[in-house]
Amino acid sequence: MPKRRKRDFIIRGFSKLLKEDKLKIVAELMDNQLEAVDLMKSFWHSDQSKQKIFDEFSENTISNFYIPYGVAPNVVVNDTNYLVPMTIEESSVVAAASSSARFWSEHGGFKAKVIDTEKVGQVHFQWKGDKKKLHEVFDQMKHQFRRATTSITANMESRGGGITEFYLIDKFTEIPDYYQIKIVFDTVDSMGANFINSCLEEFALTLKDFFQTHPIFEDEERDCTIIMSILSNYTPRCLAEVYVECPYEELDGLDNELTGEEFARKFELAVKVAEIDVYRATTHNKGIFNGIDAVAIATGNDFRAIEAAGHAYASKDGKYSSLTEVELKDGRFKYTLRIPLAMGTVGGLTSLHPLAKYSLEMLGNPSARELMMIAAALGLANNFAAVRSLVTKGIQIGHMKMHLMNILNHFNTTEDEKAKAVDYFIGHKVSFSTVERFIKNLRKEA
Amino acid sequence: MPKRRKRDFIIRGFSKLLKEDKLKIVAELMDNQLEAVDLMKSFWHSDQSKQKIFDEFSENTISNFYIPYGVAPNVVVNDTNYLVPMTIEESSVVAAASSSARFWSEHGGFKAKVIDTEKVGQVHFQWKGDKKKLHEVFDQMKHQFRRATTSITANMESRGGGITEFYLIDKFTEIPDYYQIKIVFDTVDSMGANFINSCLEEFALTLKDFFQTHPIFEDEERDCTIIMSILSNYTPRCLAEVYVECPYEELDGLDNELTGEEFARKFELAVKVAEIDVYRATTHNKGIFNGIDAVAIATGNDFRAIEAAGHAYASKDGKYSSLTEVELKDGRFKYTLRIPLAMGTVGGLTSLHPLAKYSLEMLGNPSARELMMIAAALGLANNFAAVRSLVTKGIQIGHMKMHLMNILNHFNTTEDEKAKAVDYFIGHKVSFSTVERFIKNLRKEA
Repeated sequence: MPKRRKRDFIIRGFSKLLKEDKLKIVAELMDNQLEAVDLMKSFWHSDQSKQKIFDEFSENTISNFYIPYGVAPNVVVNDTNYLVPMTIEESSVVAAASSSARFWSEHGGFKAKVIDTEKVGQVHFQWKGDKKKLHEVFDQMKHQFRRATTSITANMESRGGGITEFYLIDKFTEIPDYYQIKIVFDTVDSMGANFINSCLEEFALTLKDFFQTHPIFEDEERDCTIIMSILSNYTPRCLAEVYVECPYEELDGLDNELTGEEFARKFELAVKVAEIDVYRATTHNKGIFNGIDAVAIATGNDFRAIEAAGHAYASKDGKYSSLTEVELKDGRFKYTLRIPLAMGTVGGLTSLHPLAKYSLEMLGNPSARELMMIAAALGLANNFAAVRSLVTKGIQIGHMKMHLMNILNHFNTTEDEKAKAVDYFIGHKVSFSTVERFIKNLRKEA
Repeated sequence: MPKRRKRDFIIRGFSKLLKEDKLKIVAELMDNQLEAVDLMKSFWHSDQSKQKIFDEFSENTISNFYIPYGVAPNVVVNDTNYLVPMTIEESSVVAAASSSARFWSEHGGFKAKVIDTEKVGQVHFQWKGDKKKLHEVFDQMKHQFRRATTSITANMESRGGGITEFYLIDKFTEIPDYYQIKIVFDTVDSMGANFINSCLEEFALTLKDFFQTHPIFEDEERDCTIIMSILSNYTPRCLAEVYVECPYEELDGLDNELTGEEFARKFELAVKVAEIDVYRATTHNKGIFNGIDAVAIATGNDFRAIEAAGHAYASKDGKYSSLTEVELKDGRFKYTLRIPLAMGTVGGLTSLHPLAKYSLEMLGNPSARELMMIAAALGLANNFAAVRSLVTKGIQIGHMKMHLMNILNHFNTTEDEKAKAVDYFIGHKVSFSTVERFIKNLRKEA
């Protein structure tokens, strides 16, 4: 069964082959080659020019991977009611977000704000000269940096952004002669990765030139080694905050056995566990990213950048911990998420991917700040739904229903068979084999 | 332009609507409603029964979000040559992975191993009784746990997995009367989320019953509060390790200006920066997840779980740091990635999503362990490519080419226009507006 290409079959020039030829090479690994090619092609967009767009987002593309595109209705953020597009393959995430959103839509909605939108880039270098001199002329260097990038920054400045500040940092205790110039950017509604990296590479050239030419330096101070120049995905000051809040009584209906106040206290306890225990914190935060990534993908944002920033931020106090916090005070339950979210609504894929563009229109063509707040709200919505289930009925009930439907589809069940299966599996264990057995028996009987 | 539903338009019963009706409600938010519906439908699979599968993975689905599905050839892991499926929207990631893989295929390939595959679940509870008694009867409790879940574990045990161990942990200093039972599982080739959660919820019931009935406890010790029962996405012992290694001389060709040894030393310095600086570490690790997530998605694995575990693991020593390390010794360069990867090759979406199933066949239907090693290799491949670019020519050159192609596609450029644009933009700044201007001028001239 496992047909693996062995080392002597290294493929040369694969990237230069036509898509059809790549497809054939891939299909050679499959049991049924013709079927494999047909399957791959069945996922192509029927409009060739559209398909070409997808093909060129990435390299060596042979097909499109489908991820379900759904919507969560009734997401009320700062009194605006959004229908939020979500792209996610995991069952229950959209349902959970929708359920939370619906609940909070009747209890004041999500209250969100953007704390800041700073993006960061760094030029890392080693230099053996006199540190005092460097600090002395750093203002001149900054001036040179700005001058060298006027053509790159002009457009960004006309949109209200640009370079905010330069910092000279040294970390000699950790790496000898190691400095970094940390640059803060405002990229307005764009993610700004290309803008920032273009500026940084320009700064690096300017830096080298500055050491070479400035009169303050001695001959032996004229060389520096640029280690690298690159934006940072860690954006602790590109930060959104969102909370929900209501009096205990409004939580009364959330569980049959708990009063609103009891629910609030149990919820608080569950979040406290996520604050002190890394095993729980990881899963707790994962639930937040279920919602946030789904919005990020649907709007053409880079979810890996968002994940990296958020999880690194979760360990900012020396221990990986929960990104949310509960406050119980004066008879009120308040639940807050604070999370770095470097998102954009212009540039990148946002206007190039037809569905990403559509998603943004669905949200009323929001600014980056507005999108940050919406995404944060979805993160809180998903986490709230998860913790709510966990401290009440458990999560398996909801999950199992979706899992059952997926398995039933696998066996091409009729609507009638599905109805019978749903009845049967209330109280019975759902697994691939139990469902298979049930369907086989059902068909045998028929 | 922004048409947003205001609070008084809360939608009731949205999830119960037919897909067509959901589509209409969503389209109402768009400028051109008919076009919007057509666009959504254009992304449906032409085979209705297949489309139904995608629709039921998630909820409130109205379409499929396309993400490019490509392949990285020549990925040699432990002397087996794989063609690795990657699902990713970001340009340059597949190209970078392929380029690294090609280079290392001629220098020993990726050497990988799985350190362990432990999965973890927790039952969190509060109990006010005598701790000594609890420890005294914990073995009996474990026995009860196992007995209560024999029907759930039977199938997993027949595949060689099951429950490995139970630990009783208390954290009174942080939360009064708070205990957790930490359970270690072996889920063999499945991700095992449903299996673990089903066991845990059963343990919770058993635990309550145990306190109620065991003769050792006094009346006032019979109540306990189950806070929650849930698997952990933090899997520091579900760990893969992968490295590449070669003598300095074999790195000679990687840069025009650096010898192999100089390249190795500069590379080491760049990784050292990622070890000590959170701003750099976050981006450094993000590059690893570019490759890993692309494989995870293509094979039907949950990338959010993988991201959460990996980034939490990156902060395990109290400071968020690089997941890779360089060793320069005896004239050799060795680069290692160690990363938790809870992946599965059976269950979940792996066999339900037609392309995920295809991806696994492309890899020779690997075991979960084998897939962990392949994914880890791709993570190292992408990170190596990124650091290599950063310490040599910078990353903007490669990125800009892909970005240019994307923008050109947006303007429906002909092959001839594309060729002219590629020539022109060597050395000119690529942005949406500069490309737009160039194409407009070109067409004006024509």
